[in-house]
Amino acid sequence: MTFPYAALALADNQRSLWMDAYLGVRRRSEALCTPLSPEDYVIQTCPEASPAKWHLAHVSWFFETFLLKEYLAGYTEFHSAFGYLFNSYYEQIGKFHPRHERGFLSRPGVEEIYRYRAHVDEHMQQLLYSADESIWPSIRQRLEVGLNHEQQHQELLLTDIKLNFHANPLRPCYRSDLPQIAGASTPSLHWVEFPGGLHEIGHEGGGFAYDNELPRHRTYLYPFRLASRPVTNGEYLAFMDDGGYGTPRFWLADGWAAVKRLHWSSPMYWELIDGVWWQFTLGGLRKLNLNEPVYHVSHYEAEAYAAWAGKRLPTEAEWEIAARHLPLAGNLADSSYLQPIVAADGDGLQQMYGDVWEHTASAYQPYPGFRPTAGALGEYNGKFMCNQMVLRGGSCITPADHIRSSYRNFFYPHERWQFQGFRLAEDT
Amino acid sequence: MTFPYAALALADNQRSLWMDAYLGVRRRSEALCTPLSPEDYVIQTCPEASPAKWHLAHVSWFFETFLLKEYLAGYTEFHSAFGYLFNSYYEQIGKFHPRHERGFLSRPGVEEIYRYRAHVDEHMQQLLYSADESIWPSIRQRLEVGLNHEQQHQELLLTDIKLNFHANPLRPCYRSDLPQIAGASTPSLHWVEFPGGLHEIGHEGGGFAYDNELPRHRTYLYPFRLASRPVTNGEYLAFMDDGGYGTPRFWLADGWAAVKRLHWSSPMYWELIDGVWWQFTLGGLRKLNLNEPVYHVSHYEAEAYAAWAGKRLPTEAEWEIAARHLPLAGNLADSSYLQPIVAADGDGLQQMYGDVWEHTASAYQPYPGFRPTAGALGEYNGKFMCNQMVLRGGSCITPADHIRSSYRNFFYPHERWQFQGFRLAEDT
Amino acid sequence: MTFPYAALALADNQRSLWMDAYLGVRRRSEALCTPLSPEDYVIQTCPEASPAKWHLAHVSWFFETFLLKEYLAGYTEFHSAFGYLFNSYYEQIGKFHPRHERGFLSRPGVEEIYRYRAHVDEHMQQLLYSADESIWPSIRQRLEVGLNHEQQHQELLLTDIKLNFHANPLRPCYRSDLPQIAGASTPSLHWVEFPGGLHEIGHEGGGFAYDNELPRHRTYLYPFRLASRPVTNGEYLAFMDDGGYGTPRFWLADGWAAVKRLHWSSPMYWELIDGVWWQFTLGGLRKLNLNEPVYHVSHYEAEAYAAWAGKRLPTEAEWEIAARHLPLAGNLADSSYLQPIVAADGDGLQQMYGDVWEHTASAYQPYPGFRPTAGALGEYNGKFMCNQMVLRGGSCITPADHIRSSYRNFFYPHERWQFQGFRLAEDT
Amino acid sequence: MTFPYAALALADNQRSLWMDAYLGVRRRSEALCTPLSPEDYVIQTCPEASPAKWHLAHVSWFFETFLLKEYLAGYTEFHSAFGYLFNSYYEQIGKFHPRHERGFLSRPGVEEIYRYRAHVDEHMQQLLYSADESIWPSIRQRLEVGLNHEQQHQELLLTDIKLNFHANPLRPCYRSDLPQIAGASTPSLHWVEFPGGLHEIGHEGGGFAYDNELPRHRTYLYPFRLASRPVTNGEYLAFMDDGGYGTPRFWLADGWAAVKRLHWSSPMYWELIDGVWWQFTLGGLRKLNLNEPVYHVSHYEAEAYAAWAGKRLPTEAEWEIAARHLPLAGNLADSSYLQPIVAADGDGLQQMYGDVWEHTASAYQPYPGFRPTAGALGEYNGKFMCNQMVLRGGSCITPADHIRSSYRNFFYPHERWQFQGFRLAEDT
Repeated sequence: MTFPYAALALADNQRSLWMDAYLGVRRRSEALCTPLSPEDYVIQTCPEASPAKWHLAHVSWFFETFLLKEYLAGYTEFHSAFGYLFNSYYEQIGKFHPRHERGFLSRPGVEEIYRYRAHVDEHMQQLLYSADESIWPSIRQRLEVGLNHEQQHQELLLTDIKLNFHANPLRPCYRSDLPQIAGASTPSLHWVEFPGGLHEIGHEGGGFAYDNELPRHRTYLYPFRLASRPVTNGEYLAFMDDGGYGTPRFWLADGWAAVKRLHWSSPMYWELIDGVWWQFTLGGLRKLNLNEPVYHVSHYEAEAYAAWAGKRLPTEAEWEIAARHLPLAGNLADSSYLQPIVAADGDGLQQMYGDVWEHTASAYQPYPGFRPTAGALGEYNGKFMCNQMVLRGGSCITPADHIRSSYRNFFYPHERWQFQGFRLAEDT
Repeated sequence: MTFPYAALALADNQRSLWMDAYLGVRRRSEALCTPLSPEDYVIQTCPEASPAKWHLAHVSWFFETFLLKEYLAGYTEFHSAFGYLFNSYYEQIGKFHPRHERGFLSRPGVEEIYRYRAHVDEHMQQLLYSADESIWPSIRQRLEVGLNHEQQHQELLLTDIKLNFHANPLRPCYRSDLPQIAGASTPSLHWVEFPGGLHEIGHEGGGFAYDNELPRHRTYLYPFRLASRPVTNGEYLAFMDDGGYGTPRFWLADGWAAVKRLHWSSPMYWELIDGVWWQFTLGGLRKLNLNEPVYHVSHYEAEAYAAWAGKRLPTEAEWEIAARHLPLAGNLADSSYLQPIVAADGDGLQQMYGDVWEHTASAYQPYPGFRPTAGALGEYNGKFMCNQMVLRGGSCITPADHIRSSYRNFFYPHERWQFQGFRLAEDT
Repeated sequence: MTFPYAALALADNQRSLWMDAYLGVRRRSEALCTPLSPEDYVIQTCPEASPAKWHLAHVSWFFETFLLKEYLAGYTEFHSAFGYLFNSYYEQIGKFHPRHERGFLSRPGVEEIYRYRAHVDEHMQQLLYSADESIWPSIRQRLEVGLNHEQQHQELLLTDIKLNFHANPLRPCYRSDLPQIAGASTPSLHWVEFPGGLHEIGHEGGGFAYDNELPRHRTYLYPFRLASRPVTNGEYLAFMDDGGYGTPRFWLADGWAAVKRLHWSSPMYWELIDGVWWQFTLGGLRKLNLNEPVYHVSHYEAEAYAAWAGKRLPTEAEWEIAARHLPLAGNLADSSYLQPIVAADGDGLQQMYGDVWEHTASAYQPYPGFRPTAGALGEYNGKFMCNQMVLRGGSCITPADHIRSSYRNFFYPHERWQFQGFRLAEDT
Repeated sequence: MTFPYAALALADNQRSLWMDAYLGVRRRSEALCTPLSPEDYVIQTCPEASPAKWHLAHVSWFFETFLLKEYLAGYTEFHSAFGYLFNSYYEQIGKFHPRHERGFLSRPGVEEIYRYRAHVDEHMQQLLYSADESIWPSIRQRLEVGLNHEQQHQELLLTDIKLNFHANPLRPCYRSDLPQIAGASTPSLHWVEFPGGLHEIGHEGGGFAYDNELPRHRTYLYPFRLASRPVTNGEYLAFMDDGGYGTPRFWLADGWAAVKRLHWSSPMYWELIDGVWWQFTLGGLRKLNLNEPVYHVSHYEAEAYAAWAGKRLPTEAEWEIAARHLPLAGNLADSSYLQPIVAADGDGLQQMYGDVWEHTASAYQPYPGFRPTAGALGEYNGKFMCNQMVLRGGSCITPADHIRSSYRNFFYPHERWQFQGFRLAEDT
């Protein structure tokens, strides 16, 4: 599958390219669901992990709500109840079905969801080809948000399938045909230095960005060093073997409370079977590869490891300064591993993009001068700027054309079901 | 569909009749699922309501565990994990999957469940035809329990589909082709008298009974009267209109706590839409028929209504004494209404069997001299003899050949998702 | 302290005797609080255990509400908010302060509570001496309820002090001067037989009884045997050593769930210190005496022990038939042990009264023909006739003149903070 | 009462001045408890609000643990269990009593707590006079922490008395003799401008500071304006009247969830009685003065108000830059109002110190280069640097010599029981 989407920066007004991009994103969502049975589409095993069919419908609702109902004259919604069922959290649009009950719905069934998608696709094509030039810029702008939105849900679709499958003692396998790289050794860790001073961070322009990446602004940094690669399973195991999960002084107070409340003693998805560590992956249960980056660890665990190691996590500004001149490449979803792989050898920073979302030390807060997008779309990012932490760099299930140096992902510090790892930092 | 099962009392040793009975029960379970999509089989919207595919598998596990693995030499279980997944609560058999996580399992899928059923059916046939005479009596006894067990789950399948569908704002309809009887009026209520004195209750022999119906024993009753028919929707509405749900003196203390905690203001499945009461049924949303028996009311609500009406609920002994000479007939599952209907006119007791399970005033406790069945099957009934209340008479979704005057059903006093109604009693 | 109250049966109309009884009961409540500091009066460590000062105030509110405000012309209540604060659960009287927040109130302070008591006492004396003969029978009847009510709270005062003190790691001692009987051995257990047949149970008249002991009525019993004494700590320890708390087949389903949810592994108040069992008592921590009756076990534990022992619990009718001709004597509160003691040797039934409340197999339900007392006092007993189990015989903290053979106490089957033990029964 | 403590910056080594400071702080804690009855010392109505006697003991435990046991040869602890009972959260010191059970303890009683205090005071005096010069610097440093620590608890003592008293329907009054200022009008709000650029924030040296105020470091700010005074009750009421609590778009997502979960419809401690707003204060229930600063609002409410007003909250850096040249004066605890008062007229910023802790837009995170204090004292601040928000400036119950421009207070964004208000900011 190729994604013409990346070419769009140069082609603002070529509607056919936009249509290709639209169809490319839409088809990819469906391709991700190929391995699923109708039953697999339905389940939700915790409030955070939505059913696959909900994701497929919600992203369609997004186009329907913010584009078709706004801009396509005479458009009739596919089903009058879908606004209620598939609005995620947009309070300004209207009431919505409770998040934790998404797995209660056997209807609409999978086939009807695909009919809904086809209905939306058909009318989106109609809109994109027929829209008057006067409203095209607005349409194009929202279309871009819609495509990025669907890409985010492609990633969530995979995290949620993994989580929902993991609740099954049969440990179902999402895809048994994933490539694996055998027994590489971990490259030794070195430190890359960066100078302090006044820097600018935030989106520079020239392509899409979410409102939370703006405005670009000055920030003062002290000199720092970044680890050349993320922490590996082997390194993390040393922390565990040293009593990491039983030593409160390594932990934030809320982190320690989480350890006790949630009975953590290893990263999520790890299983100790007859003295051997295994890991549940999208390719099923695999023996833990000590050389791969550790993932499915919470912010609290990343902080505790760093305290144990005598280091710290990078701030999001440090991460961005370090990443901005690196090529936008790595083990992203398009590589098809769907699993972090062993870092390559090399002088500079490895695995900044892809493999694992990297925890930062930064609370998710508005940049100076931040203004949320007007209207209901303003709820996309801004209202979550409290109690969450920033992660950077994308993971092995992030679409390759969806990531950039200024991209800010955010989760609560106790959450572990995303593909989250971390890299250490220190002061110079 | 006809059920040869009723003829079996006379035919203890005719294996082909038993096989017919077995296949009849098994096919009926599957027939009940005909209206379901694969997605419908999966969902569980509260811990009490199991997914349809769980029911289909669990009843098969029951035959596999208590018959095939015990008596069929060389039998290999269909899947080594199914014992864990489909054991409901038999602690002596082994560990089991948590009840509230039954809806977390998309796998095994519906097709695999049906293959499991076919596997069990094939081997059950082999067992029934080939078993040595010496073990036939044991097999026959357990087979009978297994058939009754599956019939119970046929009823639960329907109560759970109803509950699980009700959690969907689309209010899916299980069967749109159910017959309905239009606008009859309620026959007036009269009281039927019964003398006091020493009576015997409990199963008399001559056919199957659960261990909890035994031993037959003497009990002393004071003279009493029973209402000729159950309380209707219209009568219950009068209680509601008189402030029933807002007046604590009608309620048991725990009942009043339930009213406040669960925000009850009407029977379950009632909906007030633009000033008109509707009722969610297996045939979808219907306008409330005031002449039909009220159902989906808890024991607490039945007690409160009785207190309001200046009457009481019958004890289970009173109910049984009153019912034992009545013909075993009524609006049971085989009538295909799947909904209580308006009582017929007539002198005596109406609707004792079928329509609605009738709440009694009796706590579910062991009869004098009760001994649970030996082994794990002893967990079927005995361990639940605390905190629950007895209901009698079957409902419109109970298989016709599954009910009898000594039959004791039991639920917690706050539960409402079963097809429960009630009839009043009073002292003479 | 002597209690003239027992003489009252013969002296219905001698008001000075009633006044003596009133003052005797009132003074005893206060005497029970002598060992308490002001801080001790305040705490509530779980919803079930009210603060001592709440008990002292609530029983006064009872006299104020049901006697002074009803019958004493011109009576002004002590404080307008006390009706709200000290009504326990009488919905018909008015709103009341949430039970679980009783320990939130530092005001009214202890001194004010004693002023409240003095105020009520003064006006009660005025009422008892001045009331017109025409209303004396009503007053006398309610006075009797009020005195019995205060006696019940004397017992609860002690159970709650014990529970509240136990939450303190310092293990405070309520009274260090309690007598103890050293090292007796347990008399061997024998079985006492009783014939079956029609019996009458319930209060016979001739003295006070609660409404729940009425009406006296016929019940049919099968022949049975009762153990000559309650189960001892030593016997219970054998059950524990045999894996009692880890073997689900001994347990009711709800009991087993309680074991796991509440992490039970011994009776309440037992502590294993360096391999030795200790027991928290009203006299502080004591080494466990294996010969004393086991107590602070729930109904579930009593049932599990009985199942393990191959016996059963007696029904309340059996217990009453066995007890009714025994002298009303035993280790009751007036013996001042405040702790069960070793049973005496002897032929017949030992320790039927006093020592420990005895669990029965009977759910707490209305007797045939039961009518609750009219008005708000009807809430005293009747509304609790669901989900609870009957206990019989009083304990070592029950006032001696408060118990009788027909007395029905009741608690939820998981509760353990009362002085509850049990005796076994079996069918003949 | 005068506090010689402020003079200490100049007098590092004058032990008698340190002793005076010590005794001054200790006596003030006790003076704050003068209005309490023994019962008042005991209660805890929610996990956040500790009993008064716990505060008095905990601060003594702090001196005992970090000074007496470390530096006073031969010191014997007052009670071997107090380490368990009065350690708040120092994991490295040892296990501690659960926070939510502090109100379960009637013993040690109030008198024993005062004996504990006297014991600690006596030995602290001994230590301060006798300690060798070689260890004096360490002692002096920890003494200073201990004194600041006790001052923090003086403030918490008042917030917790207020909260605990509020749970009582009698609405007890802590002090009826507090001064009040009648009916002033609010000075009109104006905006004070500050230039952007590189600034330094954090403690400058020259006096005590907590580790979390360090290191002093550079930060880049954009030009901004601060409101001349905090938001008043009247202004906040306009937000409420405009539907503030019912309009999700003003709220952070977690804030809106809190509004619904906690049923907020006004600031904490407000009561609408017959159409008039009252406010519960340390001086009892008072009519709401519309001109006083609003307080007992959470971070979420401050954010929602700011969104409604089209402004924002200041960052902690902005606040500090604005405050650092202002005199350290205001309505602090020593003014004895114990309640925010109406702002004075004037050109510049009013009420930056005292009256209400001011919410900022800043998450509580470590400053660049932050190192927690070594050892268990490092748990004082650092481990809480997640999920909390910074507040600045002290309140009307903060000791006057306890506040400074670099002082960072921190609470969770839903908490309201502290004396928290806010001032608006905007970009230039």
